[in-house]
Amino acid sequence: MGVQGVVVLDRTSDADHNRTVITFAGEQGPVLEAAIRAARKASEVIDLNLHRGIHPRLGALDVLPFVPLDGSTMQDCIEMAHEAGRRIWNELGIPVYFYEAAALRPDRINLEDVRRGQFDVLRRAVLVDESTAPDVGGPALHPTAGAVIVGARKVLIAFNINLNTKDLTVAKDIARRIRASGGGFPGVKALGLPLLSRGVVQVSMNLTDFERTPVHIVYREVERLAALQGITVTESELIGLLPRKATEMAFTDALKLPGFDSQSVLENRIETLTCK
Amino acid sequence: MGVQGVVVLDRTSDADHNRTVITFAGEQGPVLEAAIRAARKASEVIDLNLHRGIHPRLGALDVLPFVPLDGSTMQDCIEMAHEAGRRIWNELGIPVYFYEAAALRPDRINLEDVRRGQFDVLRRAVLVDESTAPDVGGPALHPTAGAVIVGARKVLIAFNINLNTKDLTVAKDIARRIRASGGGFPGVKALGLPLLSRGVVQVSMNLTDFERTPVHIVYREVERLAALQGITVTESELIGLLPRKATEMAFTDALKLPGFDSQSVLENRIETLTCK
Repeated sequence: MGVQGVVVLDRTSDADHNRTVITFAGEQGPVLEAAIRAARKASEVIDLNLHRGIHPRLGALDVLPFVPLDGSTMQDCIEMAHEAGRRIWNELGIPVYFYEAAALRPDRINLEDVRRGQFDVLRRAVLVDESTAPDVGGPALHPTAGAVIVGARKVLIAFNINLNTKDLTVAKDIARRIRASGGGFPGVKALGLPLLSRGVVQVSMNLTDFERTPVHIVYREVERLAALQGITVTESELIGLLPRKATEMAFTDALKLPGFDSQSVLENRIETLTCK
Repeated sequence: MGVQGVVVLDRTSDADHNRTVITFAGEQGPVLEAAIRAARKASEVIDLNLHRGIHPRLGALDVLPFVPLDGSTMQDCIEMAHEAGRRIWNELGIPVYFYEAAALRPDRINLEDVRRGQFDVLRRAVLVDESTAPDVGGPALHPTAGAVIVGARKVLIAFNINLNTKDLTVAKDIARRIRASGGGFPGVKALGLPLLSRGVVQVSMNLTDFERTPVHIVYREVERLAALQGITVTESELIGLLPRKATEMAFTDALKLPGFDSQSVLENRIETLTCK
């Protein structure tokens, strides 16, 4: 059942990832309520002991990031994340880790650090190693729903590039070169994954700071690195939504238009001049 | 003095063209009134006998196109164009030609056909050749303000590409190859012009149907044709505004994102779901 005042902006699913990303927006109260209901529903229908997919995961509801949009701040989102974490443990009995701006420990800022080992390893580790204990609840993970990783962060672009090869080492090698942790682009997380259903490999990415590292720059580098091995890009995929500014940055670059900005767009100009 | 209910969306001027494009929007009545005032003001401050510029021109207010935006139709714009034409003649004594969707004769659909010869030739021609007589008023052009070419048309993208050469033949040759009248892209009008103040040449374009011939496709072809002669693009310029969809089409293409559309953009999705 929906929550009044919340709109579902997007839902993207993928068979190989066996994962669904749902994006919803609204005022803080209704969004928090919808998030709790989403956690409850996921825990009812997903048993991680039976779940298979190529994407790393720790929980039935795996990640719950709050993102400030028009009219709210990162601080609002941090407070919402902490409130959501308390409620998920109190009402659903699922322990919670906090990440990014909502992290309580510096070693949990990065999502991939929190998720390392995933459900299958962490469910045992938390019982013997205090350093992996959840931030709220636990220490044991929920037997079927694992744990929820709750955070506050800027808008993220989840973007995948498929390559016309079955050779997974190509995707893994490119992912390693472009990601921040390998000395690549700031704010880029990347994995090489096999898309078994399509017989190709994929560079699967999260861009956590698209204004610093624009999506078209990352695309071009992946294309270039692939070409060095005689491989081409089949197509790209966007998971969820992306901010308008990302399209405008790519447009400026593709057409060498230094004078172009958001206010060069007819509809944006009309909105600015008539709605505010 | 401004007209209530009309917002000026953009004003772009260029010294070499010696020309200013003003874009304004509003309800039909106020926009019509603002258009008449613009024609009057231009006729007061510009004397075509003294005016110099590299862009073809026939009138002090040279072109007055009405463009349907949200909530109005092309038929509305045709009627506004005809009403504006009558008023410009009756109130200002400046004769009018109608073009594109507002044209009364098939040989006047294309703006460049109407403007051929420009002020300097047409001011004499209309007196001896009935086929060049204005649609409203005249037949003599106004002695200093010429004639206004009034039309109704879809959104047009005015887009210039500067090349790092002083050789005007390069720009003229590329313009000839890409424009519709030379067998190039549908809906593309192009001229090769010298930008004396900057020491480069320019391919100056109007794209009258950007959904059929996208701006990024034209850019790429100009870049390719220039490269064949060892010349590169210095930069591009947008004159006035462009529709959001043009940026989204370029984004889809640049990133091989077949699934991308306007509703993949966060802000657009929120607007669609919350404002309508």
